[in-house]
Amino acid sequence: MGNTLGKLFTITCFGESHGDCMAVVVDGCPAGLPLDEADIQQEADKRRPGTAGTTERREPDKVEIISGVHDGHTTGAPICMLCWNKDVDSGAYEKNRFALRPGHADYTAFTKYGGFNDFRGGGRFSGRITLAYVMAGAIARKLIGRLGIDVFAHTVEIGGIKARPQALADIKEKASQNPLWCADPEDAAKMARLIEQTKAAKDSLGGIIEGVALGVPAGLGEPVFGNFDGELAKALFAIPAVKGVAFGAGFAVANMKGSENNDLYDMQDGKIITRTNHAGGVLGGISTGMPVIVRVAVKPTASIARGQETVDIQKMARTSLSVTGRHDTCIVPRAVPVVVAMMAVTICDFALQAGLIPRVLT
Amino acid sequence: MGNTLGKLFTITCFGESHGDCMAVVVDGCPAGLPLDEADIQQEADKRRPGTAGTTERREPDKVEIISGVHDGHTTGAPICMLCWNKDVDSGAYEKNRFALRPGHADYTAFTKYGGFNDFRGGGRFSGRITLAYVMAGAIARKLIGRLGIDVFAHTVEIGGIKARPQALADIKEKASQNPLWCADPEDAAKMARLIEQTKAAKDSLGGIIEGVALGVPAGLGEPVFGNFDGELAKALFAIPAVKGVAFGAGFAVANMKGSENNDLYDMQDGKIITRTNHAGGVLGGISTGMPVIVRVAVKPTASIARGQETVDIQKMARTSLSVTGRHDTCIVPRAVPVVVAMMAVTICDFALQAGLIPRVLT
Amino acid sequence: MGNTLGKLFTITCFGESHGDCMAVVVDGCPAGLPLDEADIQQEADKRRPGTAGTTERREPDKVEIISGVHDGHTTGAPICMLCWNKDVDSGAYEKNRFALRPGHADYTAFTKYGGFNDFRGGGRFSGRITLAYVMAGAIARKLIGRLGIDVFAHTVEIGGIKARPQALADIKEKASQNPLWCADPEDAAKMARLIEQTKAAKDSLGGIIEGVALGVPAGLGEPVFGNFDGELAKALFAIPAVKGVAFGAGFAVANMKGSENNDLYDMQDGKIITRTNHAGGVLGGISTGMPVIVRVAVKPTASIARGQETVDIQKMARTSLSVTGRHDTCIVPRAVPVVVAMMAVTICDFALQAGLIPRVLT
Amino acid sequence: MGNTLGKLFTITCFGESHGDCMAVVVDGCPAGLPLDEADIQQEADKRRPGTAGTTERREPDKVEIISGVHDGHTTGAPICMLCWNKDVDSGAYEKNRFALRPGHADYTAFTKYGGFNDFRGGGRFSGRITLAYVMAGAIARKLIGRLGIDVFAHTVEIGGIKARPQALADIKEKASQNPLWCADPEDAAKMARLIEQTKAAKDSLGGIIEGVALGVPAGLGEPVFGNFDGELAKALFAIPAVKGVAFGAGFAVANMKGSENNDLYDMQDGKIITRTNHAGGVLGGISTGMPVIVRVAVKPTASIARGQETVDIQKMARTSLSVTGRHDTCIVPRAVPVVVAMMAVTICDFALQAGLIPRVLT
Repeated sequence: MGNTLGKLFTITCFGESHGDCMAVVVDGCPAGLPLDEADIQQEADKRRPGTAGTTERREPDKVEIISGVHDGHTTGAPICMLCWNKDVDSGAYEKNRFALRPGHADYTAFTKYGGFNDFRGGGRFSGRITLAYVMAGAIARKLIGRLGIDVFAHTVEIGGIKARPQALADIKEKASQNPLWCADPEDAAKMARLIEQTKAAKDSLGGIIEGVALGVPAGLGEPVFGNFDGELAKALFAIPAVKGVAFGAGFAVANMKGSENNDLYDMQDGKIITRTNHAGGVLGGISTGMPVIVRVAVKPTASIARGQETVDIQKMARTSLSVTGRHDTCIVPRAVPVVVAMMAVTICDFALQAGLIPRVLT
Repeated sequence: MGNTLGKLFTITCFGESHGDCMAVVVDGCPAGLPLDEADIQQEADKRRPGTAGTTERREPDKVEIISGVHDGHTTGAPICMLCWNKDVDSGAYEKNRFALRPGHADYTAFTKYGGFNDFRGGGRFSGRITLAYVMAGAIARKLIGRLGIDVFAHTVEIGGIKARPQALADIKEKASQNPLWCADPEDAAKMARLIEQTKAAKDSLGGIIEGVALGVPAGLGEPVFGNFDGELAKALFAIPAVKGVAFGAGFAVANMKGSENNDLYDMQDGKIITRTNHAGGVLGGISTGMPVIVRVAVKPTASIARGQETVDIQKMARTSLSVTGRHDTCIVPRAVPVVVAMMAVTICDFALQAGLIPRVLT
Repeated sequence: MGNTLGKLFTITCFGESHGDCMAVVVDGCPAGLPLDEADIQQEADKRRPGTAGTTERREPDKVEIISGVHDGHTTGAPICMLCWNKDVDSGAYEKNRFALRPGHADYTAFTKYGGFNDFRGGGRFSGRITLAYVMAGAIARKLIGRLGIDVFAHTVEIGGIKARPQALADIKEKASQNPLWCADPEDAAKMARLIEQTKAAKDSLGGIIEGVALGVPAGLGEPVFGNFDGELAKALFAIPAVKGVAFGAGFAVANMKGSENNDLYDMQDGKIITRTNHAGGVLGGISTGMPVIVRVAVKPTASIARGQETVDIQKMARTSLSVTGRHDTCIVPRAVPVVVAMMAVTICDFALQAGLIPRVLT
Repeated sequence: MGNTLGKLFTITCFGESHGDCMAVVVDGCPAGLPLDEADIQQEADKRRPGTAGTTERREPDKVEIISGVHDGHTTGAPICMLCWNKDVDSGAYEKNRFALRPGHADYTAFTKYGGFNDFRGGGRFSGRITLAYVMAGAIARKLIGRLGIDVFAHTVEIGGIKARPQALADIKEKASQNPLWCADPEDAAKMARLIEQTKAAKDSLGGIIEGVALGVPAGLGEPVFGNFDGELAKALFAIPAVKGVAFGAGFAVANMKGSENNDLYDMQDGKIITRTNHAGGVLGGISTGMPVIVRVAVKPTASIARGQETVDIQKMARTSLSVTGRHDTCIVPRAVPVVVAMMAVTICDFALQAGLIPRVLT
């Protein structure tokens, strides 16, 4: 239960880290969208490891589309995309199966599923499930791109190192130029150094990602329970390791006055805009037409090589554990394209609900 | 669209600030729950104004149950609860109808609904809609209370003044003792003073509320898209003025190491616990059995008496505006019972999904 | 649970036969639709008793709109419509509370809700709940009427008396001219006589209603599980006493050859049509553009004045019972506007899903 | 859109007749159910051709489980089952691509999807999609089997030949003994002869299937819009070629009196039963505890070898067509296991909603 998201643009995920595949079924994509595996591959590749401290698992992660596309176009039928798992070594997981890894879902999954959960590589709780999100997001991005909506994300903080603020146009251009997805190359270098040091110290780092959507028309979102921010937050909390989601000024509103936080309306080129965007592009659960700005807190990688005290759930006894295997010291950069994907999926659903995307594309 | 929330315990809200009523239909409540209007009234009263700086609108907000209860018990049929609106003066709204109030949903609602939205008192976008949430929450609290689950919330920050940390048991006991729902009376007094000063300055204040759920069993939540944190976040973002939701350590994870953030497992009284609770009671989208801790950022009241520049959407021209009428200088305290309600509603749905609440109560 | 229907045009019903009211919340109606209580009243009146053998309960059934409409137009917010129950006498029900009425939901409701169900007048299982359907249908009809879709229904069989076939245009014109909704006045007279005789014999009659939708564009319906016929059937089975739903040739297909049943395609005025319409306007779960034809089997009224053997569920002992009170000898005519309503509601939802109805009407 | 069914036990289908595969994702299956491919294969094999007049396509239809099962048990994660398509020849379809086959979804699919639909072998509208239903049904049957619920179905009419009535126990035993799934071997022989004759005449036959569920406890189903009969009807209308669904006495109620149709309550072994079962096991949208009896009308196979007049949708001109290729003269027998599957899937979801199936099986 719980593996389907969306109302008109729905995605259903399946697959496990060390199972046969990671996959997603996209249902509700209009017919007539030009689509091939290269479109999806391009997005999937963005979440592959590429920087210091990221996991050494080297999956080819070759995307296959096995339904819903014919003759180079979507058919209106559900589109299943998958990557077969190739480079799997479950040995370490078998050995420490019952020693609960702190910060992981081992205990909650064991409890919920009575120990029947596939524990190998985290099974269904691996960060690898986000491969499915990214594949779905690739289709969503193509669809909303036709409306002139552009979604991107960047790293704004890792381990306490904050990226200096920049204009959105600069962020969009520069963030993709380094593997940390940080728009300031100098800050990126600092972050990279900290990641190296932390890796050497057998520890890990968290951070903050900022997602941005430009060109979202005013009026998307369905108050009060299907609203723009609520649905987007729900989609982002589906990314493992996310512990917080905030729009615009976010938690800083606690220390702002109304006169500071309110975004004053103004006119620009005959259209209504706000002079500031503390709202992050959402008011009353509806998009304002200003850039959507959402910040996502990502916790430090739970897997650390140093010893940690824990409990063996089979023996019901204290034990200790050092998590070996291939792990990212900091998962933040790899989560950047995933944030983009979940934003695109959510916005695409809202655009369909608003009737902005025709059911047949020509 | 978007006025129904939940899978097995569903709530459907309707009503407008200056319309006939504020109401909610609860569908999925098991039969046999003792319930009368006093049960609901008690919760509804908690969100009434009671402190310096809160709105002077003095609604009786008398709860009526008009379906789903017979002979003092729920029948299994949908339960409609409503409060008729009594103390309504729409004059000020009529006058400034087209001058967009900064920070309000005036512009987004106008755009989405083509100007047909009921603008009086914010209409469907008024904070008054949370009355419906609280009525639904009253039923949810009774249901989960039978499982030993206890939900409460408190004010942890207003206008930069932070409440000192306390043990959860103390918070639970003390927070209800002052109208600010702040567990430390001294901090509460400081906040109250700041509210008074800010009111005098014709400005407003935001803050942070912390919601706590004790006794939530491990195993609630349906990964990956119906997970505990995602659904709870979605429910909380339905509260007007909420700009951020974070669990446990929240955004502080960005500056923590894995070795700091990971909650080590331990045994207590034969049960597995974690020594710390940075996770806020959720791992892998599933409840851990530790207290659920969620923080909610509430922006400063958008309505401020001082002049603000804005746009008249009818004339499409710049104008200025000072929002008169009855408004809370700080909405945070009144949102505290609403946070409780939305937590209860969400947890109740999960408990039903997990089969923990029988369909007939005896 | 289960009191909400629809994806984009959703209706949530509440209320009991002898409770405070019968009501429905319509969520998803576009903003800007001119709407007042008279629009709804007109449809609600159609299901009032008006012919020989129908119940003598004389409710005014005065419709009130208590949300979602402002200044004569829908606002985009949920629309609650209700009728307060006035003419209620629960005495007979109190007396025979535990004697299960054959053919009624007494036993299933008692079992499902542990005896907590409101048994008075059938409570939530009364035919009176269809008042809510009709109110929702009134809005749906207005919406799809703007697309040129016209829905009507007529009685094709009562107690074995079959109405002679006629052209759809004639049926549309004539069916509303007698209280039996039978397009042939002579057949209607026969049915009326049989109803009188059956009433005198303290018995009841069933029948068949045919619903017709003209002007439904080809392409509505979402295969495979949200298809046109499946969703329509589900909506029609929500009408109490419905035991069968069939499209076009219906169960007669069992005795037809492919060469007889296949509707041959042809051209008319440059458009593709079928020469016959055995499909009833649906192929592959998608509307064909031909008239939608659906037949609905309605069982004889369960309440009959003659003695019936049954069981007292409290004493768990055999007993007998003759159901007194006000009952229709034949419920079929009163179900005709309800069939129309559920067809309209379903088609309206599909039209919204297909993007055919704008979110703001001007 | 529309390829997911169910609330707690959800199935999502994908795949096309001449695409890569036919597949289904089952989400919501409790953890701990022993499951392997042989369990699924056994059910999938039942819908394979095996009798006179059925298609000559000889797919191996080898079932693969590619997620959700580990170590011989379900894990609580979504279970994807698929069959790769092997024996595909799309030549005939390419040739006649634009000549609309009467009785098929060619026209509606073309219209809905703008001609982008995969037309080969009917694509997403092929009867072959029911392979996915049967795979999902195999899991559902195992789950509800644990509650003592037994679902089966049999052919009650083909081409006007009606099977003689028998006791349910006999039907259950005998129906599986011939490839027509007809419980009377003599009637089955007659049907087989008629199929042979009809095949020789290049025509096709329809029929009626009766589905039976024994052991369904009283109380399943969620009135009014999630009711037992409505949800079951919706699930059955997802089977291609189904034109009608009726419970118990079905359309015969039109010619019955209340005194005939009402099922009188009685006591048996201390439990409440009804003496007859005209209700077909459902009253007020809730299961009665008596056998669930549902009849499903299946139209004659649309593909017939004789010439039919039609329209070429590309040229927008009249043309004629004789459908060649491999087709069943009568699809009824092959739909029998599909009816069973959809009944099992629906009942399983209701059982989960009622809390009758634990989330972990041990």
